[in-house]
Amino acid sequence: MLKKVLIANRGEIAVRIIRACAEMGIRSVAIYTEPDRYGLHVKRADEAYSLGDDPIAGYLDPQKIVSLAKQVGCDAIHPGYGFLSENAGFARLCEEQGVRFIGPKSEVIHKMGDKTQARDSMRAAGVPVTPGSEGNLKDLDDALALADEIGYPVMLKATSGGGGRGIRRCDSADELRTQYPRVISEATKAFGSAEVFLEKCIVNPRHIEVQILADSDGNVIHLYERDCSIQRRNQKLIEIAPSPQLTPEQRNYIGGLAVTAAEAVGYENAGTVEFLLTGNEVYFMEMNTRVQVEHTITEQITGVDIVREQLRIAAGLPLSYRQQDISYRGFALQFRINAEDPKNDFLPSFGRVSHYYAPGGPGVRVDTAIYTGYEIPPYYDSMCLKLVVWALQWDDAIARGERALDDMRLHGIRTTASYYKQILQHPDFRAANFNTSFVPEHPELLQYSEKKHPTEMALAIATALAAHAGW
Amino acid sequence: MLKKVLIANRGEIAVRIIRACAEMGIRSVAIYTEPDRYGLHVKRADEAYSLGDDPIAGYLDPQKIVSLAKQVGCDAIHPGYGFLSENAGFARLCEEQGVRFIGPKSEVIHKMGDKTQARDSMRAAGVPVTPGSEGNLKDLDDALALADEIGYPVMLKATSGGGGRGIRRCDSADELRTQYPRVISEATKAFGSAEVFLEKCIVNPRHIEVQILADSDGNVIHLYERDCSIQRRNQKLIEIAPSPQLTPEQRNYIGGLAVTAAEAVGYENAGTVEFLLTGNEVYFMEMNTRVQVEHTITEQITGVDIVREQLRIAAGLPLSYRQQDISYRGFALQFRINAEDPKNDFLPSFGRVSHYYAPGGPGVRVDTAIYTGYEIPPYYDSMCLKLVVWALQWDDAIARGERALDDMRLHGIRTTASYYKQILQHPDFRAANFNTSFVPEHPELLQYSEKKHPTEMALAIATALAAHAGW
Repeated sequence: MLKKVLIANRGEIAVRIIRACAEMGIRSVAIYTEPDRYGLHVKRADEAYSLGDDPIAGYLDPQKIVSLAKQVGCDAIHPGYGFLSENAGFARLCEEQGVRFIGPKSEVIHKMGDKTQARDSMRAAGVPVTPGSEGNLKDLDDALALADEIGYPVMLKATSGGGGRGIRRCDSADELRTQYPRVISEATKAFGSAEVFLEKCIVNPRHIEVQILADSDGNVIHLYERDCSIQRRNQKLIEIAPSPQLTPEQRNYIGGLAVTAAEAVGYENAGTVEFLLTGNEVYFMEMNTRVQVEHTITEQITGVDIVREQLRIAAGLPLSYRQQDISYRGFALQFRINAEDPKNDFLPSFGRVSHYYAPGGPGVRVDTAIYTGYEIPPYYDSMCLKLVVWALQWDDAIARGERALDDMRLHGIRTTASYYKQILQHPDFRAANFNTSFVPEHPELLQYSEKKHPTEMALAIATALAAHAGW
Repeated sequence: MLKKVLIANRGEIAVRIIRACAEMGIRSVAIYTEPDRYGLHVKRADEAYSLGDDPIAGYLDPQKIVSLAKQVGCDAIHPGYGFLSENAGFARLCEEQGVRFIGPKSEVIHKMGDKTQARDSMRAAGVPVTPGSEGNLKDLDDALALADEIGYPVMLKATSGGGGRGIRRCDSADELRTQYPRVISEATKAFGSAEVFLEKCIVNPRHIEVQILADSDGNVIHLYERDCSIQRRNQKLIEIAPSPQLTPEQRNYIGGLAVTAAEAVGYENAGTVEFLLTGNEVYFMEMNTRVQVEHTITEQITGVDIVREQLRIAAGLPLSYRQQDISYRGFALQFRINAEDPKNDFLPSFGRVSHYYAPGGPGVRVDTAIYTGYEIPPYYDSMCLKLVVWALQWDDAIARGERALDDMRLHGIRTTASYYKQILQHPDFRAANFNTSFVPEHPELLQYSEKKHPTEMALAIATALAAHAGW
């Protein structure tokens, strides 16, 4: 087993990994930059080291991180998600320096990060991909010809793109002519590559992704799927496992596709294969070669500790489970509580958490790095807490979600919590009838008022009066 | 469905019931006495009413509580555990006043509260009871003759007793002669009844109890068992579900016995049938006619929301599950975090919670009514938090327990948390080899030092220095 792991991340995912290390008797090492000095991951790790004053640079510095890992005697690095987690160069540096990178081999990260290579690999393995380019586009004429063949609307995408950048929808040849040079320019600036490709635009799909685990002996299993259709501008808001919109046959089919995909590229460690579904069609979208924010809900329904498996796999151990050992039970929902103001176009709302009290009781899990008095730094992701609820039945999971959102106290900043309660109350959501257009099609859900807590307010007033009046 | 429920309790169980009400759209009404005014149950209920200055009296006043329930329009009362929960007179008053008592019929509470009646009912139903009295003892000679017949040691018990009072172990005829008048005197004073009975003392048994649910149509199911052998002076400390010490055959046999027991007395609502196990022998001990502190761990392994089922049953609805719908998965452990000092003979340690931060992450559930700044009143039970952990495998559940106990911050009072970490590290506990003698036989586990958090301490010192030095 690993002895000491450096966690090249911050916030809730760093705390998540620290917890897994603690349960496995592995010593944990946190890194931080000075604005992050009071982060919970710094407090909870066994050791913590500063990587300088710049808020971000330290978290993105492969050399510094690998050097530190070697210096303090770490045998592995867990990259979490974001930051360097899908940086093939970082993984390669780890390999060269003899520190295990907790993820797949660097060439697999590279291959799946190159979207046309990924598409080609999947096509070759028999995994359905969206109709479109084989390889990159040669020029605009190539693009126009292909678009005519597959039909508009099409998506023009940067081959090295990601995170919703370097992507344009084109509804006509005219639009394609206009966007083509723009995407090339954006791709060159943002990703240092002018390669682009084109695929059919799947209109209002459901976003379904499959969690997979693969060990170094080539064993690959899937842990069923997550439905991440509730998203806004490509950012997931509420994730659900399993998808309430799939039949068991569809579920097994998609799970099998994900295993095929992982096997085809010699995948190792935890990963996620993302698909778009429309009607009965399933298309490979991309593979994320890291642990995902929403791995939690898969843990809730299957009972498998995904981060624990990641650490075991990196240590060269076989998977703890065969496919037939994996079952799922009930429904889990994750609410990404973001420090944002939904009523003000989701503007970030960083600042001091004046009061935080965790929701609890049956079927509630919280992953967070905030605490009362914590000042959320403005330099990072706005997601500040993951609230996960679970219940045997879909309706009960929704009711539990409403209750747990109500149960939580998070004051001092604006968050997305109350907005999620609106989504939970919508008949289409409750009927498990939604796709990626749900959020944009329901702007009326932003018309809500924050719930007041009358008993608590009365008590607060009474206490304040008593303090001043000398009752 | 019920519309509005009065919760005749306080602390974590009141909060637990409020949460179930919230998830079911039922309005919740809290009661409190003045020293309990800042209790979380008061803050979280939809309405809250004071029942006077005396810390305890209000919670034990059937007339006041039923009157209030009627006055504010409640259609039911949930008694929680302790207080009036097993008071047949309270249940009868509810029945007479047309407010549903969320529990079994008053005559069933009465029958199961009378220990010789309960024994007789079980014996008649074919549920094995400890060898001993049929009915109450006539006199000392009767006791001596019976003890000779079944063999020493024997337990002499008050028929109306409970909570560990009115019970004496007698290892010889001489001891029985000495104790007989004492138990009669104690029983008369404490329970208003001089009736006593005698049973064989089962030495160092395992304490195994089965959760049952029964609806008003006579459907009875069990939710498997809990192992509550880790106890000190009859107070449970760590509870486990399912018992890691049972084979599946033993598990099904004991579950079946519990269903037989419940059916035999026309049981309705949630209840627990407690058994003592020694070798391959199983003996009925008693039935608790209420929700139990440790219902949580059964919820974790089966996924069934027991309080929700209680409310449904009280509303006249059928059980949500048949026996074949109930499965269990993994292992759950509950740690009763008590405001006590284990190193000082478990002396209560009430006072102000200067800092509380809930443990979180995978497989962790917390039920509590404490919060930072809360002053734990000295009038009630010392249990201030229930920490529940779950994992698929026994070893992993133990590791998670250690991690979650470490993860929790609860300052300002002494608690039993660190003591539980010692228990988790003992080889016999880890090997699932323990009975009710485990705690008394391992006084050396009290020799521990509280874990320090070096990173946090260094940070705290740095912060304090910075504040004073103007860094």
